[in-house]
Amino acid sequence: MGLIVQKYGGTSVGSIDRIKKVADRIIRTRAQGSDLVVVVSAMSGETDRLIRLAHEVTPYPDEREMDMLISTGERVTIALLAMALHERGVYARSLTGRQIGILTDDVHTNARIKAVTAERIKAALAEGVIPVVAGFQGVNEKSDVTTLGRGGSDTTAVALASALSADLCDIFTDVDGVYTADPNIVPSARKLSRISYEAMLEMASLGAKVLNARSVEFAMKYQVPVRVRSSFNDSEGTLVTKEDPEMEQEVVSGVAYDKNQAKVTLVGVPDRPGVASKIFGAIAKENISVDVIIQNVGQGALTDISFTVPRGDARRAKEVLSKLAEEMGVADILLMENITKVSIVGVGMRSHSGVAARMFASLASEGINIMMISTSEIKISCVIDSKYTELAVRTLHDAFQVAKVGLLPPAKGKGKTRRSNAPN
Amino acid sequence: MGLIVQKYGGTSVGSIDRIKKVADRIIRTRAQGSDLVVVVSAMSGETDRLIRLAHEVTPYPDEREMDMLISTGERVTIALLAMALHERGVYARSLTGRQIGILTDDVHTNARIKAVTAERIKAALAEGVIPVVAGFQGVNEKSDVTTLGRGGSDTTAVALASALSADLCDIFTDVDGVYTADPNIVPSARKLSRISYEAMLEMASLGAKVLNARSVEFAMKYQVPVRVRSSFNDSEGTLVTKEDPEMEQEVVSGVAYDKNQAKVTLVGVPDRPGVASKIFGAIAKENISVDVIIQNVGQGALTDISFTVPRGDARRAKEVLSKLAEEMGVADILLMENITKVSIVGVGMRSHSGVAARMFASLASEGINIMMISTSEIKISCVIDSKYTELAVRTLHDAFQVAKVGLLPPAKGKGKTRRSNAPN
Repeated sequence: MGLIVQKYGGTSVGSIDRIKKVADRIIRTRAQGSDLVVVVSAMSGETDRLIRLAHEVTPYPDEREMDMLISTGERVTIALLAMALHERGVYARSLTGRQIGILTDDVHTNARIKAVTAERIKAALAEGVIPVVAGFQGVNEKSDVTTLGRGGSDTTAVALASALSADLCDIFTDVDGVYTADPNIVPSARKLSRISYEAMLEMASLGAKVLNARSVEFAMKYQVPVRVRSSFNDSEGTLVTKEDPEMEQEVVSGVAYDKNQAKVTLVGVPDRPGVASKIFGAIAKENISVDVIIQNVGQGALTDISFTVPRGDARRAKEVLSKLAEEMGVADILLMENITKVSIVGVGMRSHSGVAARMFASLASEGINIMMISTSEIKISCVIDSKYTELAVRTLHDAFQVAKVGLLPPAKGKGKTRRSNAPN
Repeated sequence: MGLIVQKYGGTSVGSIDRIKKVADRIIRTRAQGSDLVVVVSAMSGETDRLIRLAHEVTPYPDEREMDMLISTGERVTIALLAMALHERGVYARSLTGRQIGILTDDVHTNARIKAVTAERIKAALAEGVIPVVAGFQGVNEKSDVTTLGRGGSDTTAVALASALSADLCDIFTDVDGVYTADPNIVPSARKLSRISYEAMLEMASLGAKVLNARSVEFAMKYQVPVRVRSSFNDSEGTLVTKEDPEMEQEVVSGVAYDKNQAKVTLVGVPDRPGVASKIFGAIAKENISVDVIIQNVGQGALTDISFTVPRGDARRAKEVLSKLAEEMGVADILLMENITKVSIVGVGMRSHSGVAARMFASLASEGINIMMISTSEIKISCVIDSKYTELAVRTLHDAFQVAKVGLLPPAKGKGKTRRSNAPN
């Protein structure tokens, strides 16, 4: 097929031996008649090593300097992979984010791509040279190096596939594809052969780490077909693509969970206009992203507001609100760190009613209390106590018979034997 | 004083602890009222680690890719040092070779600087920000990263000092300054407080590793005062500057040696025009630099030609010549790898006769055979058997009384007791 962008993640290029195997795979793909653009991450462990060095210098490294530091990881990989290709008699050329014209905004360590020129890639392809591109990085208007945040190499690959009108974007990682649930928790989890952008986006946002959410967003926007597959075997992987009639049949295509959550509750908030805006304005100012929000029905003039944030930001969120709380006369701020968000995702939900009810009933049947609920057109999330994570995922996977492809299964009775809680 | 360029070598930034010490020193220097531009090398060991990785991939890495790979080392250091300065409350900004506008030619891994704009350095200085610059690297016209070869960070520092009309270029390393001989071999070796560019250039070319020869050339050409000093103490170091009357007094200012040499001998070369050009043309084409060359007086139609090359290139030189030798009917090619070049250097030689004779006599008095001789206006080099290296250096240091500043000492008698040969 025409042009393929292949992206290899950190574990796929985690050693010299792995880099050589990637070179072999690239050559096999090209032998099948495709033109190739290769995007790589830093060797696994390298980015963390660099971050550790920074933290030995200072607890609060400057973000521009962090980008200068960690962007070196991908540069090492592109050079080594290009060498491995040369060694095999194939023309290849390493190119940095700047060299391929990835222009980003100015938000260091979490920049967004504004434009992609890809001129040197086109030139290399025209010469029959395989471009080996550093993922995760670009430059801002000052020509300072920026990085795209966790999973940013996926975004680079999809952005290039879009800019080059590639026929496919292959994301090579250490798993076989997108599963209906984490196979480590649910032995009956099934690998999906296809999934829609919408469902994948929900799965990615909900903690299924196989693909970075921003890259899926990008792929959806520009209709780039993305395939998630393993660099450790020849499995076909999962194709992420636009919805088709067949997919629509599946009510729930996956069960996801995210343990990296914490719940903040403001107790006794004055129930008047402008209060929520003050609270979430203060949180936003600190660049903390809020996920689920619930506001209890007011008891007279006071109400409670709860919301979830990434666990690493929870203490900072509490600090920020402490000052505000005094001002506003909030009674107390509670922090709960041992929570998990479990979610079911499926584009078929749109046309099926009763999905939410079945989800709540399934969790209740196992004695799992639901603390918060949030829904979208194609997903339902429940915040629960972390200790029930594995039980909840298995229960929901069973309840919706996600392991089998097909229509919404008939409602199940409550006669299920209760399983022991998996260790948390 | 006005503007100082400070360059810190690999051992000076060899650990996080050392980087913090460098930050402290930078702050002390600035507190004394100087504006500062800082140039750094990769942390010691890092460049070698990257080269090892490349050689695990392929025995002959592509040189463009090598530059992409090894140029990451300096980028890590600039980011970490800038962070350390921030941590101490000082504005600093890391800048790469490209960002400071170091434009080089196209010779990857050994590029030469063609132009330096230094615009972002000037901008940083104007803002009161300390520029922390990656040494050793630049970009060619295609905007590909190039590196300047071993010791290239010295060259970066001197080039910047010149471009910025700095008042001084401080080269921080792990030794106190320039010595009259290697203090590990000659206990009486004396640190020079000043040395001329010319003498330093000879010393550097001859294997005294304290300063890279190309950087001295650059300093001489643009009259940049350079000071070599230790980052491990507060010693004043050695000032490398233009000749002054006081310096001229010293006949021999230093004894240097270079063990990284090998001798190639072509036996039975047809003694006719064009032969030497063929031989050295072939060697040059392989980018092997030839140092000393001697051609024996012809025996009839045949002659022998010997020359020295860096030891690492010796086998390749022999290979290159093997084909040519057959063509030309050369009888044999001999390779001798255990040789050393010992040299005496001093601007005072120009106006003193008998220096060479004294050198040869001194070596002879110790039973050291001279295989090859090469001279310039201010240096005399002799190629000897490596096993005599230390003995030869000490002997010459004594013979010319280099340990004492002063005029040419009277000729010494031959009644010296023979020392045991130092181990090689």
